[in-house]
Amino acid sequence: MKPRVGHIQFLNCLPLYYGLVKSHALLDIELIKGNPTELNNLLINGKLDISPISSIEYARNYKSLMLFPDFTVSSDKEVKSIILLSRYPLDRLPGKKIALTSTSATSHVLLKLIFNAYNIKPEYFVAPPEPEKMLSESDACLLIGDVALKYYLNGKSMYVYDLGYEWNKLTGHKMVYAVWAINKDFAINKKELCKYVFDLFKKSMDYSMDHLQEISDYAERWEPFSSNSMMEYFRSLHFGFEEEYQKGLLFFYNKAAEIGELSYIPELEFFDIYQDIKR
Amino acid sequence: MKPRVGHIQFLNCLPLYYGLVKSHALLDIELIKGNPTELNNLLINGKLDISPISSIEYARNYKSLMLFPDFTVSSDKEVKSIILLSRYPLDRLPGKKIALTSTSATSHVLLKLIFNAYNIKPEYFVAPPEPEKMLSESDACLLIGDVALKYYLNGKSMYVYDLGYEWNKLTGHKMVYAVWAINKDFAINKKELCKYVFDLFKKSMDYSMDHLQEISDYAERWEPFSSNSMMEYFRSLHFGFEEEYQKGLLFFYNKAAEIGELSYIPELEFFDIYQDIKR
Repeated sequence: MKPRVGHIQFLNCLPLYYGLVKSHALLDIELIKGNPTELNNLLINGKLDISPISSIEYARNYKSLMLFPDFTVSSDKEVKSIILLSRYPLDRLPGKKIALTSTSATSHVLLKLIFNAYNIKPEYFVAPPEPEKMLSESDACLLIGDVALKYYLNGKSMYVYDLGYEWNKLTGHKMVYAVWAINKDFAINKKELCKYVFDLFKKSMDYSMDHLQEISDYAERWEPFSSNSMMEYFRSLHFGFEEEYQKGLLFFYNKAAEIGELSYIPELEFFDIYQDIKR
Repeated sequence: MKPRVGHIQFLNCLPLYYGLVKSHALLDIELIKGNPTELNNLLINGKLDISPISSIEYARNYKSLMLFPDFTVSSDKEVKSIILLSRYPLDRLPGKKIALTSTSATSHVLLKLIFNAYNIKPEYFVAPPEPEKMLSESDACLLIGDVALKYYLNGKSMYVYDLGYEWNKLTGHKMVYAVWAINKDFAINKKELCKYVFDLFKKSMDYSMDHLQEISDYAERWEPFSSNSMMEYFRSLHFGFEEEYQKGLLFFYNKAAEIGELSYIPELEFFDIYQDIKR
């Protein structure tokens, strides 16, 4: 059976997808698309073999997972597509109602940590990612993905806070929003396929990093964003998992544990791509 | 927005998929995979713009649809993946219980017509496509797709009736199991995109018809079928919609109406690919 691989259906993962299409990889993996919450559930319930997973959910389910090396959705500072859209400036938000998008997990915790640092204690509720509906029942809403990017780029009538930027301003750390993980059973029993998918991903991502202008032009054809803004968006994102990003993630886990969002801080256990794998 | 295009996740549609991957078409259409029943529902409920649809369901919903020209899943005689798997020979089935796969619509009617011709009047019930479970509560089961093909090729311990073969033997007609249809609103308002998808499909299918051996070899890598049996399978299928197939389909509709499975026999209303479409 082909490896069942999750894919975040947001523009932040378009570079990976673009490379996978260009290399014909979709013949050799079964790609299942969804939003982060949907993919989290599918991976945790064993319906996916390899998938992006919200970084906070990896930590909550680390026992049944192994990290797929080298791939994340991260940012150094600005992320542009994880935002708080607010009627009020931050300092006037204490005690207000905040709607959290149901499509995300990491950003819920990230927002709580940022609010915590400013001693803001609002009331939260989770809702589908429909900003107008969310704001009819709240004073600010947390959005991720393409709908967030749209408000980030065009939202002039409200306050827009970029959570990646705010986090870095507060802590100096880089932030890892999603990691890729392998179901541990699959990682143990299907080493060869893990390596195979890793190589497909690597090749695809290398291709895409060399063709970001082409991908931005392509995105403009189908999406409500200009090629220029797509290019800037891709440049603000980071897809690797270098030491600085690992450090940032562990820092985030520590802070999440402090506010009770994590009961245990796992080590980052990576699948060893270079182990001796029999074919 | 990219056109939302349905795709039957059975090996009978692998040639089309293979061509779509090879031509990078998956960058320009949003492909939604499912079994025929799932796709029927998505198309009829407006969640897909263009999709394969069971031929009987096209007739039942013709008012809101237009046919996408030149593409079907059909057979002249043998189809190999629409079978009745039975403990008894046909002439010993009257009065028995028959389980019908929940993934199909056309084949339910086709089986009833074949039984009718032989004056066989069993009791039917619909069940998920799990042959062992189906046969624990019935004497024969109707299967389609890859699971049917598996029994067609390997099922030695039971009677296997190929419904395409049986239908042709009875009527002399070719049989069209699925057509591709466009949501009428989309066909009227997005003519350019319809033509665009048609051209992608045409190019993909032309590529695949020239590379059936390569596709059969590829299928052997991931599927429990040999390259040879895949090649023979692809050759028994027919993907065009020539006059003889249209005639066969209308004959089937007439027969379906006679047993009350259709209340009206629609004309075959095709989207005109060659109309003057402004770009």
